[in-house]
Amino acid sequence: MTETTPKHTQTVAGWAAMDATGKIVPFVFKRRENGPDDVTIKILYCGICHTDLHHIKNDWGNTVYPLVPGHEITGVITKIGNNVSNFKIGNRVGVGCIAASCLNCEFCNDSQENYCNQLQFTYNGVFWDGSITYGGYSRMLVADKRFVVHIPDSLPLDAAAPLLCAGITVFSPMKQHNMLQPGKKLGVVGLGGLGHVAVKFGKAFGLHVTVISTSRSKEMEARVRLGADDFIVSTDKKQLKNGARSLDYIIDTVSAWHSLGPILDLLKVSGTLVFVGAPDKPVELPAFPLIFGKRVVTGSVIGGIKETQEMMDFCGKHNITCDIELVTPDYINEALHRLVRNDVRYRFVIDIASTKSKL
Amino acid sequence: MTETTPKHTQTVAGWAAMDATGKIVPFVFKRRENGPDDVTIKILYCGICHTDLHHIKNDWGNTVYPLVPGHEITGVITKIGNNVSNFKIGNRVGVGCIAASCLNCEFCNDSQENYCNQLQFTYNGVFWDGSITYGGYSRMLVADKRFVVHIPDSLPLDAAAPLLCAGITVFSPMKQHNMLQPGKKLGVVGLGGLGHVAVKFGKAFGLHVTVISTSRSKEMEARVRLGADDFIVSTDKKQLKNGARSLDYIIDTVSAWHSLGPILDLLKVSGTLVFVGAPDKPVELPAFPLIFGKRVVTGSVIGGIKETQEMMDFCGKHNITCDIELVTPDYINEALHRLVRNDVRYRFVIDIASTKSKL
Repeated sequence: MTETTPKHTQTVAGWAAMDATGKIVPFVFKRRENGPDDVTIKILYCGICHTDLHHIKNDWGNTVYPLVPGHEITGVITKIGNNVSNFKIGNRVGVGCIAASCLNCEFCNDSQENYCNQLQFTYNGVFWDGSITYGGYSRMLVADKRFVVHIPDSLPLDAAAPLLCAGITVFSPMKQHNMLQPGKKLGVVGLGGLGHVAVKFGKAFGLHVTVISTSRSKEMEARVRLGADDFIVSTDKKQLKNGARSLDYIIDTVSAWHSLGPILDLLKVSGTLVFVGAPDKPVELPAFPLIFGKRVVTGSVIGGIKETQEMMDFCGKHNITCDIELVTPDYINEALHRLVRNDVRYRFVIDIASTKSKL
Repeated sequence: MTETTPKHTQTVAGWAAMDATGKIVPFVFKRRENGPDDVTIKILYCGICHTDLHHIKNDWGNTVYPLVPGHEITGVITKIGNNVSNFKIGNRVGVGCIAASCLNCEFCNDSQENYCNQLQFTYNGVFWDGSITYGGYSRMLVADKRFVVHIPDSLPLDAAAPLLCAGITVFSPMKQHNMLQPGKKLGVVGLGGLGHVAVKFGKAFGLHVTVISTSRSKEMEARVRLGADDFIVSTDKKQLKNGARSLDYIIDTVSAWHSLGPILDLLKVSGTLVFVGAPDKPVELPAFPLIFGKRVVTGSVIGGIKETQEMMDFCGKHNITCDIELVTPDYINEALHRLVRNDVRYRFVIDIASTKSKL
């Protein structure tokens, strides 16, 4: 763990951004040998998350290039270390956003590794050996066993991939804030990668689900395709007024700048809004809807490993996957362009092992 | 309750703003007769709250002129209605921000009248009879018994007056969010009318109290005068970094625009910030400190009547009052000017019955 000049010997083909222009190109790099606590995964699928876009373009000013994005990874185990007992070669597994944590704080001990203050991410993080982590836009991954989950046999590996980030990001706060109560009313703001899974979880938990969107055009897909019970256009003052004080919870998945004011008014007194997006600029929080309804605005980031497995098992049981558009690696740049325009229903997943790709 | 042309027959001398220039002038007006559920109070003292300033200047665009401000009212009962059993003539009492509510919703039934959606305020509100309410910058008040509290004999009526708004505004969320746990760490942002009482309550509850302020100059008064345990300058990056993840709760009393970002980082994971100020413009809420610490931002507005009485009794027992500067009515305009500059330690209280006033 103190080694600062790591010996990475395994050659891996992948796809990387070399600078902030945002273009993804083929990239060959090295990964560490499979250590005693590691598993090696042949990557089959990797989702394209909105966070990838932020990192590729260095929106948060912390990108280390070359950047191999990707933290919604599914595949099959090809090698296990001597200390690994809960995985076998051939297991279908997934890796999400976490590559490492301190393993010893109150959060790690409670499998809330996502709140460890030494948390390191699957890409653009710093691993224990001092190396910069490379993500799932690549053909192979070496991962510490502590950050790997099983994928139930009932779930296809492509449509399950985005559950590793989009899925757990909404599942974790839904569980923490006690949203597993049939009959309660949930609002989901934004109908993208995170939002559409939140609607599916909400329905599976027995909640009354209202989709809240700036786009009137999304009403049909929200109701028919995803089974939402209600729809509110967030710019329609009349609809907002009619919906005032009606919701128990809101999950706000929007990553663009916005004001929380109109949305907060939809919550009942003491209602909770969970913020799971990550806009570059601070959002606007007006005092009045907050104080006059003693409403709660909180945030959540991905989830711990134990609850990620729990979510996967729940999805396996209830047959929940993401709605995806499967693309070949040579389509990544086009997919990223379309993602900027929200032109995807609802997640691009890269078919990493595709033989059709020219790259 | 449906009378729209009320018969108000009692002549009262008071002080009012006639327009948005913000100047307070003597004003004679009418109040209703003392009804069966009413008590009549000879007003002795009235605090000057920051909210008065907002209303006087029509900052929120909803002021009805002439405006008689004042919702931190103490005095002595001079008359009671036939249905009044819990008050007697001569009782020392207080009236805060609430003049009326629906009396029949889940919140009114739980004495959380402050969250009733038909809540009406002590001034600039609309009473049941359709009249605009006039506040405590006046010599006499007719108040419904449901919105009046007893002031313990141990508390002086002048220094107790601001408890009716500043006091309950911080007491209510401290109680709701379970801050009555000795040893836990509380941060108080802003050292004004609300903040200084929050420090006093915090110490009375046995909390470790850190004052957070933009003004380095307030450290001495925070520590020596109010007994705060620690002090952080909110613009000092080193102090903020040292204080990261250290507080269980924060009460943010600042009514000026600010960003919640630097303050949120001071909270532990899952820590709670309660917002009790009312800035004209929305405050800034950056996503990262919210999501990476799943911190909670919530708001609170004054308190219910039952807990206002509870707070008063607590103050009586622990000898807690506000630090005030007592002024005569002819000093109101000067006091308001000084309040804009935060030039008061910590609350102006008007000596309504003063014979020294020229007005």
